[in-house]
Amino acid sequence: MVNNIDIIEGVGLLAAVLTTYSFLPQVYKTWKTKDVSAFSLTTFTLFSIGIVCWLIYGIYKESLSMILANSITMVFSFVILLLIIKYRKP
Amino acid sequence: MVNNIDIIEGVGLLAAVLTTYSFLPQVYKTWKTKDVSAFSLTTFTLFSIGIVCWLIYGIYKESLSMILANSITMVFSFVILLLIIKYRKP
Repeated sequence: MVNNIDIIEGVGLLAAVLTTYSFLPQVYKTWKTKDVSAFSLTTFTLFSIGIVCWLIYGIYKESLSMILANSITMVFSFVILLLIIKYRKP
Repeated sequence: MVNNIDIIEGVGLLAAVLTTYSFLPQVYKTWKTKDVSAFSLTTFTLFSIGIVCWLIYGIYKESLSMILANSITMVFSFVILLLIIKYRKP
């Protein structure tokens, strides 16, 4: 029987999967096109630092889902950040 | 006295502020330049849906910090998404 708690945890799990793997198409597109002109370097720098903070927080809170989700997002966001730094025009 | 729990909650709060307001420079840049060529529409669509799911999850969990952080991120990510849809070349 599916109860309300299952549905709510399902929404949370869907949220984690969506906000994590959503970066994959962006990594692929940026990797292929090398087009980074539209990106804000400030945004991706602050966002990446923020994700590292979430990861540290998750480690201290011993939350496996926070550790997993933020580890994956950290990799994707750092790849995008490095591509922006590499291909941006000064 | 600052103890370990204060430091950890401080890291969590910093994480929330960084991953939320990091989008602001991107919104400003995209608003000004109308340059959306580099963005993955798939990424921002899935990410925005994911943030809505986090918000629903936060409402059911009665977590004020999740509700606040995800409400703000939702606004920023929907603005970026709408700008991408408006200015992208088919």
